[in-house]
Amino acid sequence: MAMDAISVIRTKRDRGELSDEQIDWVIDAYTRGEVADEQMSSLAMAILLNGMNRREIARWTAAMIASGERMDFSSLSRPTADKHSTGGVGDKITLPLAPLVAACGAAVPQLSGRGLGHTGGTLDKLESIPGWRALLSNEEMLSVLDGVGAVICAAGDGLAPADKKLYALRDVTGTVEAIPLIASSIMSKKIAEGTGSLVLDVKVGTGAFMKTIEDARELAGTMVGLGKDHGVRTVALLTDMSTPLGRTAGNALEVRESIEVLAGGGPADVVELTLALAREMLQAAGIHDADPAKALTDGSAMDVWRRMIQAQGGDPDAPLPTSREQHIVKAPSSGVLTRLDAYDIGVAAWRLGAGRARKEDPVQAAAGIELHAKPGDEVTEGQPLLTLHTDTPERFAYALEPLTNAYDIAPTGTDFTAPPVVLERIA
Amino acid sequence: MAMDAISVIRTKRDRGELSDEQIDWVIDAYTRGEVADEQMSSLAMAILLNGMNRREIARWTAAMIASGERMDFSSLSRPTADKHSTGGVGDKITLPLAPLVAACGAAVPQLSGRGLGHTGGTLDKLESIPGWRALLSNEEMLSVLDGVGAVICAAGDGLAPADKKLYALRDVTGTVEAIPLIASSIMSKKIAEGTGSLVLDVKVGTGAFMKTIEDARELAGTMVGLGKDHGVRTVALLTDMSTPLGRTAGNALEVRESIEVLAGGGPADVVELTLALAREMLQAAGIHDADPAKALTDGSAMDVWRRMIQAQGGDPDAPLPTSREQHIVKAPSSGVLTRLDAYDIGVAAWRLGAGRARKEDPVQAAAGIELHAKPGDEVTEGQPLLTLHTDTPERFAYALEPLTNAYDIAPTGTDFTAPPVVLERIA
Repeated sequence: MAMDAISVIRTKRDRGELSDEQIDWVIDAYTRGEVADEQMSSLAMAILLNGMNRREIARWTAAMIASGERMDFSSLSRPTADKHSTGGVGDKITLPLAPLVAACGAAVPQLSGRGLGHTGGTLDKLESIPGWRALLSNEEMLSVLDGVGAVICAAGDGLAPADKKLYALRDVTGTVEAIPLIASSIMSKKIAEGTGSLVLDVKVGTGAFMKTIEDARELAGTMVGLGKDHGVRTVALLTDMSTPLGRTAGNALEVRESIEVLAGGGPADVVELTLALAREMLQAAGIHDADPAKALTDGSAMDVWRRMIQAQGGDPDAPLPTSREQHIVKAPSSGVLTRLDAYDIGVAAWRLGAGRARKEDPVQAAAGIELHAKPGDEVTEGQPLLTLHTDTPERFAYALEPLTNAYDIAPTGTDFTAPPVVLERIA
Repeated sequence: MAMDAISVIRTKRDRGELSDEQIDWVIDAYTRGEVADEQMSSLAMAILLNGMNRREIARWTAAMIASGERMDFSSLSRPTADKHSTGGVGDKITLPLAPLVAACGAAVPQLSGRGLGHTGGTLDKLESIPGWRALLSNEEMLSVLDGVGAVICAAGDGLAPADKKLYALRDVTGTVEAIPLIASSIMSKKIAEGTGSLVLDVKVGTGAFMKTIEDARELAGTMVGLGKDHGVRTVALLTDMSTPLGRTAGNALEVRESIEVLAGGGPADVVELTLALAREMLQAAGIHDADPAKALTDGSAMDVWRRMIQAQGGDPDAPLPTSREQHIVKAPSSGVLTRLDAYDIGVAAWRLGAGRARKEDPVQAAAGIELHAKPGDEVTEGQPLLTLHTDTPERFAYALEPLTNAYDIAPTGTDFTAPPVVLERIA
C-alpha cells in the first residue's frame, strides 16, 4: 500500500491504531524530509490527544532507533549501567552518581543534554568547571569510559536523528507533554546508545513534566516496558519534585553541592537519592557486592570524579565561578516552612541567568539560587530564606516575581512532614 | 499580555477557551508569518479534536475577515443574494441558479472555486465553454454584476488572505474536517465579499464532507449564526448527496445539463433544488413577487445566462467539447436501482480526468460520467447504466475500480423511495 502523510494523520485523528508500516514509513519519511514539519506537528497533536497503545509506542521507538546508528559497549570489561532523569529543579544527581557507580565497578555512559525552560541541564552544570568540554567523539567517549569507568558528555548527532528532529519540532508546537512521545524519545536514545541496564528517575510534582503520580506511573511503566522489549534491564523510581533537590539550583552552585556529596557530606535528600539510584544501577548491572555509601565516604567516588573531569579537559582543583551580585530573600514570619515550590524556584533561577530561553542562548555559570531552608524546617522571621545569584543585577526584579508565591510558612508547632524523596519503584 | 504561539496551542490542547485576544493575535501573526505553519497545524488539530464554542468561532471568523479587504455592493441598485454549496458530485446548481435569481431581480455575486478531490469546481465547469475566463478584477466583477445581474468568477486574493493560507495548510495536514474551521473558512469569505443575504446548501451523504445529518446540522447552524452575527440574512438547506445531482458528473457534461434546465427541461432533482434555492435567495433578498419557475420556462433566465457568459468572453453558442473515448457500464441484472453512490461516481469521474489531484493539475473539459438511471428507477439487464467519458482511454481501468461497488439493484417490485432532495431547512 502506498503511504501518505494525510492518511497516517487521519488514522490517529480518528482514534485508530497506526499500523507498523505506517509508523515505519512516517518516521523514515520525516527524517528524510518527505513528510513536512507541519504534517508531523498535526500528527504529534493527534497522538498527544488520542494516545498510542503499547504496540504503537514500541514500534515508534524502534523506528526512531533505526533512523540512526547504534553504539556498542560490548568491548568493555565492565557491565554498563545508565540512568536517565526526566528533569527537575536542583537535579544535579548525575554529577555524584556517575563517578559513585563507576567506583563500585560498573561502566557508566551518561549522554546528557542541556537545559531548556525551568529545568537545568547536566552539561550546562559541568561547563561551569574551567576547561571541561562536553563534546567527545564516539572513540573518545569509549576511551574515557574504559579508562575512568564513567563519562558524562553530549549525545552525538548520529543517535536517533528522527528523535532529534521531532524533539525540536515538539518544543515549538505545544506537543512536548505527550507520554508516548516522551517515552519513545527518551528510550530511543538510551537503547541506541547500547547500555545493558537503565535506571529511570521519573520526577513528580510542580517542578516536573509529570505533575501527578498517575501520569508519572504511566510514563514510567511505558518506558520500563520499552526497555525490556529491547533487552535492556530497566527499572524506574518515581521521585518527588514538589520542591528542589538539595539546597542549590544553578550551574556552578550545583557542582559545588555535588562535590560536597562526593566528599561524604551534602544535603540529606541529594545523598539519599544518589544512593537509591546507585543501588538500583548496581543491581541492574549485576554487581551485588559493592557498598556505595562507603564509596562516598572513603574517597573512591571522589577519585573517579577527579579523573573523569580531567579526562575531559577540566581542572577539578580550579575555583568555581561565583556571582557578581547577590540578593537575599528573608523569611517574612517565623514558623515551619511547609512549601517551597520547585517550579517557581526553577523559573526564578532561569530568569537569573542559569537557564536559556532559546537553544542558542548562553547561560551564566554562577547564576542561581541557594535555599537556606527546606520544607519541614523551622524558620525565624528575618532569617535568610533564599540567596539569589546573578552577574546581571537588572534581572533581580524579574526573578523575584515568581518567588512572591513560592513558599508557605505555617505557625510554629504545625504538624508537617515533607514527602519522601523516593515515592515508588516500578520494575 | 505578551502572546506566543505555544501558549495559544496549549490553551486549546488542554480543552480551554481561546480568548478574543489570543484569536486576534494568532490569525494576524499567522498571516504575517510570525506563527509558523507547524504551529498553526498543531493548533488546527487541537481545534479539530477539542472544538471551539460559538464565541470562539465568531471571533476566529472576524479575525480572518479583518486579515484582508472587504468588498462593497452598496452602489448596486438591486439587493444582493449569494449562495454557497459545501460541494458535491454533479453539483452544477450554481450555473442555472445565478442567472435565474438575477432574472428575478436580485444581484448575484458568485465567487467560486476550483475542484479538488472528488467534488467538482464551478470554475472548472464554466471553463469548458470556449473563451470564458474566470479571473476578473474587482471593477470588472462589479461591472458585470451591475450590467447583467449575475457574475460567477474566481475570488480575488485580497479577500480573507488568512483563510487562503490556512485552507492550503489544512489540506495537507489532515485538518480539513473540523466544523469550526470549515464554517469560519466559508463565512469569512462570504462576509468579506459583502453580500446582503446568503443561502447555504449544506450537502449530506457519502459524496459530501458531512456524512451524517447531525454533522450537517451543526455546520449549518454554526454558519447561519455567523452570518446573522455579521448582519447577513442567512439560511441553510440540508440537501441529499448520497447520489449525484442530476444525470451528469464532469465539466462540459454538467454545463450541457445546466443549459437544459435554463431551457425549461433538465433532470427533476436539479430543477427542484435550483428552484428551492432560488426561492430562498429571493426571500432573503426581500423580493417576494418573482416566479422563478416561470423564469426557467419563459427564457428570461436563459437570457441572463447568455449575457453573463458573453460578459466574461465566452461564446454561449459555441459547441461544448465532447470526449474522444467512451465506455458503457451495463446493468448486470433487471430490477430497481436502490443505490448509486455519490462518492464512488465522484472518484470515478475524477479519475477519468474531470478533477485534479494537485492544485496545479489541468482538468479535461469533456471527461466525466453520464448516469442513465437514478435511485428509484427500474432497470433492465444489459441496458446502459453509466457512460464514462475521457480523452485518455488508459484511464478507464482505473476509473472502473470504484464503480464495482457503486450501485445496488434490488428485485423488481421492491418497495423503494429515493430520499427527498431537500432534507431540512435551518434559519
